[in-house]
Amino acid sequence: MDRVYNFSAGPSMMPLEVLEEAQRDMLNYPGAGCSVMEMSHRTPAFESILNQAQENLRKLMNIPDDYAVLFMQGGATMQFSMVACNLANEGDITNYAITGNFAKKAMEEAIRRTEAIAITSSKDANFTYIPEITDDMITPGAKYLHITGNNTIFGTRYTKTPNHAGTRLVADWSSAILGQDIPVADYDLIYAGAQKNMGPSGMAIVILKKEIIGEIDDQKVPVMLRYKPAFDNNSMYNTPPTFSIYMAGLMFKWAIKMGGVKELEKINTMKANMLYDYIDNSKMFTNPVNPKDRSIMNVTFTLPSEDDTKALLEMAKKRGIINIKGHRLVGGLRASIYNGMPIEGVKKLIELMDDFENGKRD
Amino acid sequence: MDRVYNFSAGPSMMPLEVLEEAQRDMLNYPGAGCSVMEMSHRTPAFESILNQAQENLRKLMNIPDDYAVLFMQGGATMQFSMVACNLANEGDITNYAITGNFAKKAMEEAIRRTEAIAITSSKDANFTYIPEITDDMITPGAKYLHITGNNTIFGTRYTKTPNHAGTRLVADWSSAILGQDIPVADYDLIYAGAQKNMGPSGMAIVILKKEIIGEIDDQKVPVMLRYKPAFDNNSMYNTPPTFSIYMAGLMFKWAIKMGGVKELEKINTMKANMLYDYIDNSKMFTNPVNPKDRSIMNVTFTLPSEDDTKALLEMAKKRGIINIKGHRLVGGLRASIYNGMPIEGVKKLIELMDDFENGKRD
Repeated sequence: MDRVYNFSAGPSMMPLEVLEEAQRDMLNYPGAGCSVMEMSHRTPAFESILNQAQENLRKLMNIPDDYAVLFMQGGATMQFSMVACNLANEGDITNYAITGNFAKKAMEEAIRRTEAIAITSSKDANFTYIPEITDDMITPGAKYLHITGNNTIFGTRYTKTPNHAGTRLVADWSSAILGQDIPVADYDLIYAGAQKNMGPSGMAIVILKKEIIGEIDDQKVPVMLRYKPAFDNNSMYNTPPTFSIYMAGLMFKWAIKMGGVKELEKINTMKANMLYDYIDNSKMFTNPVNPKDRSIMNVTFTLPSEDDTKALLEMAKKRGIINIKGHRLVGGLRASIYNGMPIEGVKKLIELMDDFENGKRD
Repeated sequence: MDRVYNFSAGPSMMPLEVLEEAQRDMLNYPGAGCSVMEMSHRTPAFESILNQAQENLRKLMNIPDDYAVLFMQGGATMQFSMVACNLANEGDITNYAITGNFAKKAMEEAIRRTEAIAITSSKDANFTYIPEITDDMITPGAKYLHITGNNTIFGTRYTKTPNHAGTRLVADWSSAILGQDIPVADYDLIYAGAQKNMGPSGMAIVILKKEIIGEIDDQKVPVMLRYKPAFDNNSMYNTPPTFSIYMAGLMFKWAIKMGGVKELEKINTMKANMLYDYIDNSKMFTNPVNPKDRSIMNVTFTLPSEDDTKALLEMAKKRGIINIKGHRLVGGLRASIYNGMPIEGVKKLIELMDDFENGKRD
């Protein structure tokens, strides 16, 4: 079986040359005499892998010096809890903008510790748009406003940094980090699960203002859920997910080679526009998202019937196009077109949709 | 550079054929058309990898049906907290046997939530022995007794299940799981970080009685730190560390092929005895551990002086023997000889020590 075009929302398709480098060095990392997986994390060889990854991410995202970069375990879901545990004391007020399922889940974790308030929601239109936030919507005394930058399930994104009335701004940018330019300095804290544009699952990146670290270091919170021990130990309070950090490092190196985030964003915008243009001109496929809020990472679309959807999925599989089924919460179809998805894959998908629409069924 | 003999305490040496299989399938897992890293966790292909891994671990450890197996993130350190959060309510009494640094750290996490009591400690002799536990030492009302089965840093281990007066028994078996037979049914909960005998770091295995799950499901505790959501979602409440689970699965398959845990224990006992015999007969090397409590996974030893230690480390490096430096807390030397360390590696190490002792310096 040949390699397929994998439109999964994450874990997701990775550049072939990144996988090839990992494959080449799998038994013996240059100069180490062992696999990265076998390497003690307390060795110069591994510390160099970690520091290089961090430096390259800083370069790619233009991360200012007063921000720290942490490699954490537990994915974005762990950050749902950690944000509340590290930026608020018990009972403090926090603000959430509910633009989808993960925004809701982030708030649910905050509720365990804080008085979390949903200041806005796009649930009224099944999360097909990004609601405007105005300063007067922020609750006085709120410790932060949390947003979900790109909504993987619904295919929406913030196209500008929202107003937040001077309270701290926290964003989950899991599904768009490195796929589009994110103005780090606009935020106090950004986090992202790795499994979209940064390699295998099992890791999250946290980029946060250093002034936040230790400001609230609640000793009742488990050590693994506090930013300070992670920061004080260069993300190695305990054994870190070494191979995931290595793979993320390879993804960062590849992104630099591709010309950086702005270049990748251009390509991703092109890929997304190819799909949206096709859908908007189609009589069969529909995208429900407010055009100005459309994600360039996750393109959702629907067909008139369940039977059509099933038939398309079958036909896709035969052509080596996989994981275009929509999330179980919304149904329909979805193409996740992160950095690892080549333009050829998007062309193949459009060809499939076009053939399907024109009755050319395989 | 050839592959070295890597005596690291973890992450640690893995069998070559496991790495070779991972390398072979790195770009394209059989029948999938993509790398395991790229695979959506919500696909039959990945679910089969996860379920197969779980089944093989059950087979290897003879895990009774009334026990669940969970794949968790955050390593053993996260379990330090989770044990306290899931087996005790706030303010409950818990008991700890302090046999080393990780036992102490486990208790420190429990202190954040419970009234944790150290019922015994071998600190008086720098953790060179395992103290006997008698039923009368257990605090009445204690929710559990926590032990550290194998003490990686100090090279000690429990050779029999300790008395625990009917309270629940919880064990961190990180550094001996699958390397020696562990009577699962003696315990209520066993956890272990993966990076010794189960592949890359970034994952922990939890084996626990199903009756524990949900008994205390404290909604103030973050979702990622409760066993119930993990169990209810087959270890996939959020995106699990898919590649780590796959690699652990390959390690389990290999262990079965080697004849199972009892066979591996025989080999490990032999490897350890070769080293202990050499050390006990040496006039230069010393092992400080009470002979009956000696670990068969981590063999600690010392030389008369710092200069000797340095010289040996230099000579080792030249011979492709790495990571035999003792833990920074204790100094000296340590050879971790998990399942992945072949007998040849131990022979090479003894040859090195013997040459060193006899003045045959490279």
